[in-house]
Amino acid sequence: MRALISVSDKTGVVDFAKNLKALGWEVIATGGTMKLLRESGVEVLNISDVTGFPEICDGRVKTLHPAVHGGLLARRDVEEHVEALRVNGIEFIDLVCVNLYPFRQTIAKEGVTLAEAIENIDIGGPSMLRSAAKNFRDVTVVCDPADYAAILDEMRAEGNTSVETRLRLSAKAYTHTAEYDSMIATYMRAQAGLPEKLFLDFDLVQSLRYGENPHQTAKFYRSAEEVPFSLAHARQLNGKELSYNNIQDANAALNIVREFDEPFCVGLKHMNPCGAAVGRDVVEAWTKAYEADKVSIFGGIVAVNREVTREAAERMKPIFLEIIMAPKFSEGALEVLCTKKNLRLLEVDMTRSDVHPMQYVSVNGGLLAQELDVETKRVEASMTVTKARPDAAQLRDLEFAWRIVKHVKSNAIVVVKGGQTLGVGAGQMNRIGSAEIALKEAQAKGATEGLVMASDGFFPFDDCVTLAAANGVAAIVQPGGSVRDEDSIRKADETGVAMLFTGMRHFKH
Amino acid sequence: MRALISVSDKTGVVDFAKNLKALGWEVIATGGTMKLLRESGVEVLNISDVTGFPEICDGRVKTLHPAVHGGLLARRDVEEHVEALRVNGIEFIDLVCVNLYPFRQTIAKEGVTLAEAIENIDIGGPSMLRSAAKNFRDVTVVCDPADYAAILDEMRAEGNTSVETRLRLSAKAYTHTAEYDSMIATYMRAQAGLPEKLFLDFDLVQSLRYGENPHQTAKFYRSAEEVPFSLAHARQLNGKELSYNNIQDANAALNIVREFDEPFCVGLKHMNPCGAAVGRDVVEAWTKAYEADKVSIFGGIVAVNREVTREAAERMKPIFLEIIMAPKFSEGALEVLCTKKNLRLLEVDMTRSDVHPMQYVSVNGGLLAQELDVETKRVEASMTVTKARPDAAQLRDLEFAWRIVKHVKSNAIVVVKGGQTLGVGAGQMNRIGSAEIALKEAQAKGATEGLVMASDGFFPFDDCVTLAAANGVAAIVQPGGSVRDEDSIRKADETGVAMLFTGMRHFKH
Repeated sequence: MRALISVSDKTGVVDFAKNLKALGWEVIATGGTMKLLRESGVEVLNISDVTGFPEICDGRVKTLHPAVHGGLLARRDVEEHVEALRVNGIEFIDLVCVNLYPFRQTIAKEGVTLAEAIENIDIGGPSMLRSAAKNFRDVTVVCDPADYAAILDEMRAEGNTSVETRLRLSAKAYTHTAEYDSMIATYMRAQAGLPEKLFLDFDLVQSLRYGENPHQTAKFYRSAEEVPFSLAHARQLNGKELSYNNIQDANAALNIVREFDEPFCVGLKHMNPCGAAVGRDVVEAWTKAYEADKVSIFGGIVAVNREVTREAAERMKPIFLEIIMAPKFSEGALEVLCTKKNLRLLEVDMTRSDVHPMQYVSVNGGLLAQELDVETKRVEASMTVTKARPDAAQLRDLEFAWRIVKHVKSNAIVVVKGGQTLGVGAGQMNRIGSAEIALKEAQAKGATEGLVMASDGFFPFDDCVTLAAANGVAAIVQPGGSVRDEDSIRKADETGVAMLFTGMRHFKH
Repeated sequence: MRALISVSDKTGVVDFAKNLKALGWEVIATGGTMKLLRESGVEVLNISDVTGFPEICDGRVKTLHPAVHGGLLARRDVEEHVEALRVNGIEFIDLVCVNLYPFRQTIAKEGVTLAEAIENIDIGGPSMLRSAAKNFRDVTVVCDPADYAAILDEMRAEGNTSVETRLRLSAKAYTHTAEYDSMIATYMRAQAGLPEKLFLDFDLVQSLRYGENPHQTAKFYRSAEEVPFSLAHARQLNGKELSYNNIQDANAALNIVREFDEPFCVGLKHMNPCGAAVGRDVVEAWTKAYEADKVSIFGGIVAVNREVTREAAERMKPIFLEIIMAPKFSEGALEVLCTKKNLRLLEVDMTRSDVHPMQYVSVNGGLLAQELDVETKRVEASMTVTKARPDAAQLRDLEFAWRIVKHVKSNAIVVVKGGQTLGVGAGQMNRIGSAEIALKEAQAKGATEGLVMASDGFFPFDDCVTLAAANGVAAIVQPGGSVRDEDSIRKADETGVAMLFTGMRHFKH
């Protein structure tokens, strides 16, 4: 049996080659791999000895030879194939171990030229992977160092890999070449000025029971690259499988948590936050968020940005929740919460990062892509446009309300006091409708003074200010930018309300 | 100059080869291509004459040879490369013309076995494309018959293709191989029982001015395959560029139009229909849809499923609309509407099809996929659960209302009479809230009897029936399925309202 090894990622390759040798395999290698193996005391054949052809054109043509591809592609069960190899002095190659230098990394290098990028496009490697993968009935193809150990185990136990294993490895190899050429195509199209082609690939996480409605089939996928605040890469510690609507809701909750550094908790229902609060610790944040709306949170989703402690868990336990998400659950918290069999507990990586992730939504025959709305302006006193100015506590509440309101469906109004939402008005056709809902909620909780209010879009008229002032709002934050801003400012000045313009709107549909 | 031709899609290849010959090129060909060219009187070299190596293993190994890949990969500007070719008796190959048999078609054949599919995986073709594409500075790579004419024109005018052209062709070649291996990987993973990998690719239609908000960048892509009811493949006849929110709204309007065979018109604003109607013709459908809500349609989007005639255009013209979509605009209609410079007119393919398109929406680090909610149950008298039964006219209205309500954001209630919406209640947190909005609208229009009402989800309590009966609703359609269905049925029987259960809910978030 002969193996051909030519790898970019050299992890574990010396051991792999040594073990193959120990199992009686002959090993052929190329370039850097050959050098490494020989230096490590593994006796290997040079590819040129196999092809009888020199390495020409700076290594561009090494393995593109019938002695390699005939040895890979010949069917061992077809007499004519075997005979053709014999006549032409070609020997079988029974295993190919090749992985490709990530083209993404090539082009990520600062100042990389087209010529350098081009030089890094591997021709021989993908050809060998594809030949070996095509002939998986006879040939083992390895493109992932993570597979070395299992392959060796199988060889030791069974004499060779099984055809089922080889089929799986074949599928992996075509995945590798597909992804490799997708990256090259993307880069080359940009260089050539061709219209961009967006290649996306996702791995199945699970087939869902159904989609938004029971008659719609649905699946959940994740990207290969792990990202923070991602449900797709979360670790589920307890509870039933997530549903389609769970995933949408939980994702919305994670995008709210992303806004806050201090201990924070949000309860969410039907894509809108129903209660949110900051606190000195996770217990206080949860308590305030829960008390912000004890009714709506029933059957809702909760996300916190601190480890859930036993104490926090004990306070959450009596409430019927669908999901709790946190960066971590203490052992005590798990003891408390895992007694509820259906309650989904998810550990989610909440590492802060500066990237603006892309957000995709399909339309018939197409796709819309936009940067996720992660940018938020810090609310500062200098944004004040009224005579009245917010005090320090109000400024903190304005900042808090502003970070919440961007995650409420438009038209969105949020009323806050003491780092706690008291009213959330969502999804109304006009702004005053949302303001009425949010302020009515606050009133019902007996909150009638020192409130702050945030609006995701500007006020088209002064009616929102009038209503706010009449309901105990002391300070308002909104984007500004209406042709009638002056009306709203005048009304605020008349009623003694402070108003701040951020200059950035946050519609969310 | 030498060209190597080996194509699956033989469109135009004879002419292409003849013209290359006329320009003084030598042509090498393989297998079926060689046979066709020779039969068509084009003198070509057999690949074996070039490699000096026989075609072995049933054609699996033909072109995987240094005589081919050296001839493609050698840099003409590097002396050592040129010299290596000379020493090894290899001649340059200056053009590769290869296209691959669509693997999608291979596996679409009924009863195709894994062995047959495998046999159809092309190894030599992608290798030649990739080698030629890598060396685009010296080599022209052609994978699309649509490029033949322009390439010949350039050769006639300039003696050879320009390096800019060759770079573009190179990018196309890598796109071709990327898509080819994506299809193979998808198939092989399924065969191997590996977790599904979803490969998606889209072509840029346009970079948008911005996304949902001005600080978010955004782009619009389309799929290669054309589908009906698709904005991404529509023909824009007039007006400004579409915005991100336009595209979302227009797509929602097209999904509503998809529901109706008879002449139909919908006006849409902020993802919800504000007026919709069927009529004897497009003029009547427009008129009824417009009169359903003359206020909300201001700045809205209109879609009809019949050619827009001059008469319809004249009626639409006075209204401020952002977009009009139709399968066709008559010349007269264009004369009328194109006087409005900003008004976007889009011709959209509205061919009916039975496929259930997939709908994608990303979450952080992942993607949700579900079948689009295109299934609708025909509303039939046999679905009646009350003593009162709908008459024929009411049954038609119930069917109409049911097809509209599934496209209204949940909780959704629609009130209809005479094939025209009179009230649309959308996006409320509870069902009674949506019912109040829809019925109030109908009342305001003086519609107080013989109304029908549709609900996208079941009634949790009997309050919606009570309210409906008090506001002139004679018949209701809803999914049914609440534990308190009996309460609603009893209330309907008490108030003489007919109620039908479809057994299928249509939430839309």
